[in-house]
Amino acid sequence: VSRLRGIVPYLVSPVDQPSGAVRERVLADLIEHLIAGGVHGLSPLGSTGEFASLTAAQRRDVVRVVVEAANGRVPVVPGVAAAATHDAIGQAREYVALGADAIVLILQPYFRLSAAEAAAYFEEVAAAVDCPIVVYTNPPLLGYDLDLDTVERLSRVPTIRYLKDASPNTGRLLSVTTRMGGRLDVFSASAHVPLLVFELGGVGWMAGPACVAPAECVALYDHFRAGRREEAWALQRRLWRLNELFQRYTLAACVKCALELQGFAVGDPIRPQAPLGEAARGEIRAALAALHLLPA
Amino acid sequence: VSRLRGIVPYLVSPVDQPSGAVRERVLADLIEHLIAGGVHGLSPLGSTGEFASLTAAQRRDVVRVVVEAANGRVPVVPGVAAAATHDAIGQAREYVALGADAIVLILQPYFRLSAAEAAAYFEEVAAAVDCPIVVYTNPPLLGYDLDLDTVERLSRVPTIRYLKDASPNTGRLLSVTTRMGGRLDVFSASAHVPLLVFELGGVGWMAGPACVAPAECVALYDHFRAGRREEAWALQRRLWRLNELFQRYTLAACVKCALELQGFAVGDPIRPQAPLGEAARGEIRAALAALHLLPA
Amino acid sequence: VSRLRGIVPYLVSPVDQPSGAVRERVLADLIEHLIAGGVHGLSPLGSTGEFASLTAAQRRDVVRVVVEAANGRVPVVPGVAAAATHDAIGQAREYVALGADAIVLILQPYFRLSAAEAAAYFEEVAAAVDCPIVVYTNPPLLGYDLDLDTVERLSRVPTIRYLKDASPNTGRLLSVTTRMGGRLDVFSASAHVPLLVFELGGVGWMAGPACVAPAECVALYDHFRAGRREEAWALQRRLWRLNELFQRYTLAACVKCALELQGFAVGDPIRPQAPLGEAARGEIRAALAALHLLPA
Amino acid sequence: VSRLRGIVPYLVSPVDQPSGAVRERVLADLIEHLIAGGVHGLSPLGSTGEFASLTAAQRRDVVRVVVEAANGRVPVVPGVAAAATHDAIGQAREYVALGADAIVLILQPYFRLSAAEAAAYFEEVAAAVDCPIVVYTNPPLLGYDLDLDTVERLSRVPTIRYLKDASPNTGRLLSVTTRMGGRLDVFSASAHVPLLVFELGGVGWMAGPACVAPAECVALYDHFRAGRREEAWALQRRLWRLNELFQRYTLAACVKCALELQGFAVGDPIRPQAPLGEAARGEIRAALAALHLLPA
Repeated sequence: VSRLRGIVPYLVSPVDQPSGAVRERVLADLIEHLIAGGVHGLSPLGSTGEFASLTAAQRRDVVRVVVEAANGRVPVVPGVAAAATHDAIGQAREYVALGADAIVLILQPYFRLSAAEAAAYFEEVAAAVDCPIVVYTNPPLLGYDLDLDTVERLSRVPTIRYLKDASPNTGRLLSVTTRMGGRLDVFSASAHVPLLVFELGGVGWMAGPACVAPAECVALYDHFRAGRREEAWALQRRLWRLNELFQRYTLAACVKCALELQGFAVGDPIRPQAPLGEAARGEIRAALAALHLLPA
Repeated sequence: VSRLRGIVPYLVSPVDQPSGAVRERVLADLIEHLIAGGVHGLSPLGSTGEFASLTAAQRRDVVRVVVEAANGRVPVVPGVAAAATHDAIGQAREYVALGADAIVLILQPYFRLSAAEAAAYFEEVAAAVDCPIVVYTNPPLLGYDLDLDTVERLSRVPTIRYLKDASPNTGRLLSVTTRMGGRLDVFSASAHVPLLVFELGGVGWMAGPACVAPAECVALYDHFRAGRREEAWALQRRLWRLNELFQRYTLAACVKCALELQGFAVGDPIRPQAPLGEAARGEIRAALAALHLLPA
Repeated sequence: VSRLRGIVPYLVSPVDQPSGAVRERVLADLIEHLIAGGVHGLSPLGSTGEFASLTAAQRRDVVRVVVEAANGRVPVVPGVAAAATHDAIGQAREYVALGADAIVLILQPYFRLSAAEAAAYFEEVAAAVDCPIVVYTNPPLLGYDLDLDTVERLSRVPTIRYLKDASPNTGRLLSVTTRMGGRLDVFSASAHVPLLVFELGGVGWMAGPACVAPAECVALYDHFRAGRREEAWALQRRLWRLNELFQRYTLAACVKCALELQGFAVGDPIRPQAPLGEAARGEIRAALAALHLLPA
Repeated sequence: VSRLRGIVPYLVSPVDQPSGAVRERVLADLIEHLIAGGVHGLSPLGSTGEFASLTAAQRRDVVRVVVEAANGRVPVVPGVAAAATHDAIGQAREYVALGADAIVLILQPYFRLSAAEAAAYFEEVAAAVDCPIVVYTNPPLLGYDLDLDTVERLSRVPTIRYLKDASPNTGRLLSVTTRMGGRLDVFSASAHVPLLVFELGGVGWMAGPACVAPAECVALYDHFRAGRREEAWALQRRLWRLNELFQRYTLAACVKCALELQGFAVGDPIRPQAPLGEAARGEIRAALAALHLLPA
């Protein structure tokens, strides 16, 4: 992969329950649809992909299916999430061997870590594999944050080239682009307003909503790059309703619900996570309808 | 006041210690300097103004001095902060009687409140005074947030016209401007990137940094309004260093330190808050020097 | 006061709304009832007393009424709560002048404080008044905790003789009694099981439930001191239902509700805090009935 | 296993790094030592056992080694921790097949769960295996708590017989023993004072300190059961120093450090967790020396 850019949807992980078998056909169909929508990459095993609810074997299956379905047309950037360095290295090597182009590296600590311990995790995994790395931070869900000095230290590792920060703190992205813009590119998350992240130098958007509205997300990115500010803002305001809903309810349940409504049999969130209730489904259906994202 | 707009610095509260006497001359001099810098309003008794550390008598003194020094040239918008409705009503009436043009209404609960209880606070204070009201929310420091439905409910109160949200969650401001833009204007706080808040429809910036760099903050606002995007972004990136420092250290200590370095004898933060240490002072001095904000 | 010991109920603050007038007669009647129940002291202006919802004048009125009603029969130990040292010193001197025998010293910070800043608050207030001091800590509601080294430092101030820790962390009390038992006596709060706190050396119980069940709390204390372990445990288990309810719902609302049910016209919690709903009132009524704490 | 009772040390997981191989000999030696110390059970794969840092294969190895080493002399109760129901069921069945006598069931959610979703996790795992289950809750580390009504619901599942609550909230244990004492036995954790938990009906102590001081923990339990209250309290106060240290520093790092000082080559905590620094090691050495827990 030369450079990650643009719209990179976080993929859901469709699995049969209780057997746990990955629904390979459904996942491949979804990927075909996303690539047809113009997305610039694919990221399985993010939060939206319920990585924490999958066994090692399921994670492997998901990456294999995504790489095969993408078939080199767009880069595949799976999440690697672990509490332990050795576990992350094992996953990263496996996914690269399966054909991943880069990884989103997630530290999911159990005990509280110092900044130096957290930095060591990212550095040691980066030293053990050869691919480009997206450092992922998510204070609300992961319970820690990398301070700016640690991010700057990581930005000096040659293969650590991207930051995906899932907090709603947009100012932090301005700090990153201002202090280390030459070395670390930032992606917007679904907690951010992507158009604002583009304004301050962000290179793309990695998030669940792009799984549901791929062509619209690509259009937003294209409007921005072409300087069509009014069109961009009009589209951003319309798309924002999805972000609001996805933040109000549980992310994976929302994206799976929306995809089911669009005709992809991705199934329920993984138990004990429950499917959305009727009221939430109704809100998502209405939001999709307003965006003309439901099948005719 | 017709409409609050533009750069409204949060003022520090300069007090002698341990006597507690407000340094009236220092405060008046600072206000003269800020008005000369072009600011569009003045807001005493915000977080920067250490409202929580002042007695009722000190708060009153601060408002009186600011109203007298402003002398009608710009609106004065003091903070009203309380845990109890009756306390807030008492303060609000007093400040209006002293000449305040509007108030920033802060709920500082001790026990956990329901959304309905929080809404009742704002509604009952609004019903008891006649002036325009800025609703203030600050989840990190106040420990609660108003959900969007509650904000929408408050936006239907005629005198509740503004929202100042001190969280770093910029997407929330997009939700507010999209859902209730006609009824509620949003101001940027120092946790936000103000230029991005202007982009999504924000009408101004109420924050501590404007106390230290008034002309530069006004220039940022003017650049944006005149469509000078490049100048705006260049200035925003240079100014952002102040926001970073003010978020890293304690806000009031930072602004007081910066003003002392600029020659305003505003004194120390109110005890037990300690003055900044030497390292932090050095960082602030360097940031001010880089912005040419130190006296020759 | 020689030594604080035993059952010290936190008093509610009965006030007319919206006027804010303290209901002096109701408060005096309640105190008469509590003293008749055998309590060993009285503590106005704690959390139960809604200190954060009272103006300075109301707080003063409450202390004056309690001192007059107690009339020297038991010590009066009002809460002194402030964000600023000078404010706490002012309150403490005023309450001592009104006849308080000791104070419960509460730090209610707005900005985050270092351990040294927090310690300075307690030390400077202790230096400014002459009376014995109960250091109050409450991590869940006040948002900070004093680490053990800071507590030990405070224990060396001669007038700092007691600790009231409102967290549910009983082990912390064992640490305090083991490390500084000779210098600092600990009181149980309503988050603790008081009988267990007595076991590990606690000298009494300062909490809201004693306002509602004074004689029963005194009996618990007496059973323990007399070595009647079975009676103590049986009573503790029965009383615990009150603690459970008071922790589930908002403390002041619960105690005021219970006292109203017992015939004391203490009124509603201070707005915007709402009175308990019907379900919660029913649970409190049932708990009081089971303890034979309702009037015939 | 008839009934779990008494002192059940949480075992560390000694692994070579970076290979990840379980040090089987070291683990077997430690178990021999613990059984010689009189412990009543063994619990691998708790927090102390760094479950979150182990792959599925490593977890399996640990359980196998512990079952073999215990050889039926005491029950083996491994932790089963997962975000997903199917993952927990897989682990539980595997450990039972390996010879586990019961399991400690841990829900480690990624997304926020409702009470009903959390309850479903425990109920579905209980329905899928046949062994007795210890429900584990740990609000500080796991980020959620089971409310009492949910605990009561779980207590009605026949194989859910025990609760291990790792919060410091002792009052919660009184609520559990009072409301559902006949159906759910509680164990003390290291955040609790075990002697107090015994007082209120707790049936034992599952925690890391017992790994380091097995005979002393057994003596504490025996003193309590024999009614030797003074000896029990004297020993409890001496042992408490270990709990204090284990709470101040990271649990697994502390227990591994202490065992290394005692001559068990359990190695370092699993990376990126760093070994304790020199100061912390010194404190632990001193605490062990004071308890005569260092080899001569």
